[in-house]
Amino acid sequence: MTDQTTTLSHRALRVRLAELGWELPDILKTVAAYVPAVRVGNTVYTSGQLPLREGKMSAVGKVGSDVSVETAAGLARTCVLNALAAAGALGDLDQARILKVTGFVASAAGFNGQPAVVNGASELLLELFGARGEHARSAVGVAELPMDAPVEVEIIVEFP
Amino acid sequence: MTDQTTTLSHRALRVRLAELGWELPDILKTVAAYVPAVRVGNTVYTSGQLPLREGKMSAVGKVGSDVSVETAAGLARTCVLNALAAAGALGDLDQARILKVTGFVASAAGFNGQPAVVNGASELLLELFGARGEHARSAVGVAELPMDAPVEVEIIVEFP
Amino acid sequence: MTDQTTTLSHRALRVRLAELGWELPDILKTVAAYVPAVRVGNTVYTSGQLPLREGKMSAVGKVGSDVSVETAAGLARTCVLNALAAAGALGDLDQARILKVTGFVASAAGFNGQPAVVNGASELLLELFGARGEHARSAVGVAELPMDAPVEVEIIVEFP
Repeated sequence: MTDQTTTLSHRALRVRLAELGWELPDILKTVAAYVPAVRVGNTVYTSGQLPLREGKMSAVGKVGSDVSVETAAGLARTCVLNALAAAGALGDLDQARILKVTGFVASAAGFNGQPAVVNGASELLLELFGARGEHARSAVGVAELPMDAPVEVEIIVEFP
Repeated sequence: MTDQTTTLSHRALRVRLAELGWELPDILKTVAAYVPAVRVGNTVYTSGQLPLREGKMSAVGKVGSDVSVETAAGLARTCVLNALAAAGALGDLDQARILKVTGFVASAAGFNGQPAVVNGASELLLELFGARGEHARSAVGVAELPMDAPVEVEIIVEFP
Repeated sequence: MTDQTTTLSHRALRVRLAELGWELPDILKTVAAYVPAVRVGNTVYTSGQLPLREGKMSAVGKVGSDVSVETAAGLARTCVLNALAAAGALGDLDQARILKVTGFVASAAGFNGQPAVVNGASELLLELFGARGEHARSAVGVAELPMDAPVEVEIIVEFP
């Protein structure tokens, strides 16, 4: 797609992540017939990212019953780290601007706190990217997610 | 993002809205860590908009049980007015073209009339923009929405 | 939108489809106030496509209870054929690159195999387009879909 993959280091982003106590994960292998992200011109669409860390999820089930809002917000943050890893293979994250975040929250009946969950993703993006992290966002409560994940996040990124 | 915000009046659109008995609302404050809309080049992505008018929803719950299709279609129209307000801060709505509408309908079990609900959004866009309002659209039935909203709508707009 | 519609034949794609035993359907009429696809610059957004063939669905209901994963994957393939028909009215599919696929799967409680369902769409795209068919993707499990469809698919296509 681009030959930038191996030469990019996202140095500033890695430093900022380390300050916050996180790190950029390896790109998640897709479990099916698609790719982690696609670049067209300056825009990158990531695939929907599950909250996997080293192949595992720390919690599964529905937010509002099986999983607390706080835990789910942490998982949304993991999703966005995976999304950044996917996007970062196609452009320099130190130049990235975040355009759009869509957060799908597997929701127990009567749970309406999707924004608080997806804030886990949004707040990390603001911490990492500042004004370039100010994104449009949709947060919805879905019935079921792959692998019983409590949350799935996709992002659209601009590499100016 | 752009300095056009204060100088735009969307005059023609406001006239057309008034003829139909509506008006362009103030931009909804986002309740969380994101912004109402983002512009990249000529494209604006709005955040998912809830059917709030002056901070309140006239109905909550699931379409097909708590809320009728007709009421929900009216709420979808309110969502799209909020979406236009958000997009209108970043470009002149009198030049806008509507590219895509995604409507999420909080659906009671067995309710499959999502298109009739989201028509409340689509038909208003056609009335307001004519051929420039002809958009692609997805309508899906979700389990839960923020604040127990019956419907949430996001749009993608081009400012040529 | 474009005057290419009548002159495009998508010759290579039609040949490849025939080899696989399928064919490009007629464009599905939209049942509501929107259009099957919109082109902006080189990008086409399709509307969410239902698995209709000649106006009918071969199965309805929820995947994981009413409908098997295998059947649903076949329906996802039908969705993507409809999406290609819609996009093909606005550009030459023989030049198309698939950027993004979003698959909404109407899911029975506890069904988490959305990726296997949406693979019906993704695998066909890879078979048809090769490297140009490598797309980003989200697969989510929703509560209800229009007409009780088991699956709905939208795509974003580039015509370089």
